[in-house]
Amino acid sequence: MKKIGVILSGCGVYDGAEIQEAVLTLLYLDLAGAQALCFAPNVEQHHVINHLTGNVSDNETRNVLVESARIARGQITDLKEIDSFDLDGLILPGGFGAAKNLCDYAFKGPDCEVIPEVAQAINSFLLAGKPVGFMCIAPVIAAKLLGGEGVELTIGNEAGTGADIEAMGAVHLDTPVEGIVVSSRNNIISTPAYMLGPSIRDVAKGIEALVRELLERC
Amino acid sequence: MKKIGVILSGCGVYDGAEIQEAVLTLLYLDLAGAQALCFAPNVEQHHVINHLTGNVSDNETRNVLVESARIARGQITDLKEIDSFDLDGLILPGGFGAAKNLCDYAFKGPDCEVIPEVAQAINSFLLAGKPVGFMCIAPVIAAKLLGGEGVELTIGNEAGTGADIEAMGAVHLDTPVEGIVVSSRNNIISTPAYMLGPSIRDVAKGIEALVRELLERC
Repeated sequence: MKKIGVILSGCGVYDGAEIQEAVLTLLYLDLAGAQALCFAPNVEQHHVINHLTGNVSDNETRNVLVESARIARGQITDLKEIDSFDLDGLILPGGFGAAKNLCDYAFKGPDCEVIPEVAQAINSFLLAGKPVGFMCIAPVIAAKLLGGEGVELTIGNEAGTGADIEAMGAVHLDTPVEGIVVSSRNNIISTPAYMLGPSIRDVAKGIEALVRELLERC
Repeated sequence: MKKIGVILSGCGVYDGAEIQEAVLTLLYLDLAGAQALCFAPNVEQHHVINHLTGNVSDNETRNVLVESARIARGQITDLKEIDSFDLDGLILPGGFGAAKNLCDYAFKGPDCEVIPEVAQAINSFLLAGKPVGFMCIAPVIAAKLLGGEGVELTIGNEAGTGADIEAMGAVHLDTPVEGIVVSSRNNIISTPAYMLGPSIRDVAKGIEALVRELLERC
């Protein structure tokens, strides 16, 4: 049975992992007969957003690992313990958490930095010849880490983010929600997910395609 | 297009709605061409559980509507505004939130009470001849409201909970995770979901079957 690491970034689209993308990832991995193992960094969230109002909840702090555990039903491990030797591939669902907690792209754009645990995990998989998948806004992380190698990515068709990805040295390819971009030379796969949506069934198609392609590369 | 209300009870299996069950409900409704509209009561959660440790987070409070909004990507309405006239059916996913926030079954067993907004919503749909679906532990709510009418329900095969359901006057039928129980005379459908699991693909089968049956009854 293939084992795939899934890196979560909290629990909720505006300050953490996009919940629906994360659950669809777990669903399609399981349907394909692969085992998903969830990980998240043990760090504080950048902030907490009230998802009803969209406002920042002042004076509230939450931990990325603790909140990610909600999606994983408690079955989750500190990202610092991930070992690419034990796993066959890696997937990063989206949500603003990918751009606020795993890196600071949401605040610094192309000048962002990827937090060390995340950069180390991704690099260790790629060095071992194991594929890594990125959804939604998470491809900005791949652009930052692999822009110098001309990695090909998609976040859908949003011009500003696409330009930022190119500013980091990567190639952005406009892609519909059900599509994926495969950067074969880098062993990187991406899909727009809720960067486009609009509906969960649309997002599901692209995630299913990403999972299938990733498993074929394992 | 059929419109189905989905009542959430927070965001996380131990103190709120079971996230995976909720997302699968939204997925299968959308795949079937129905529109899902999410609702949750605007009340404080019974408590907050750290999903990494399983411990109660002392001194922390969260609101059921605000946390449920995470699953719904902000597209959610206060349950007190639900109108069965505008909708064709209703679904309650599970998670401990159904037994801690929508009623107090987790603490009082068969002596539980269902909070008024939830009882009123369910009764209004049933009086209008519209079907209501219950997943996981949520069928205890149906047992409490409709036990006197001999409603047939399932929570899987857990003997203690099954006995509690019968103590409330309902009939409990042992059912595998991919199965549903249809109480035709009451227009109630139930499926065990994560009361059995063990895996998301198993749970998905029962939820897909429940959604299909519910939509056929609309």
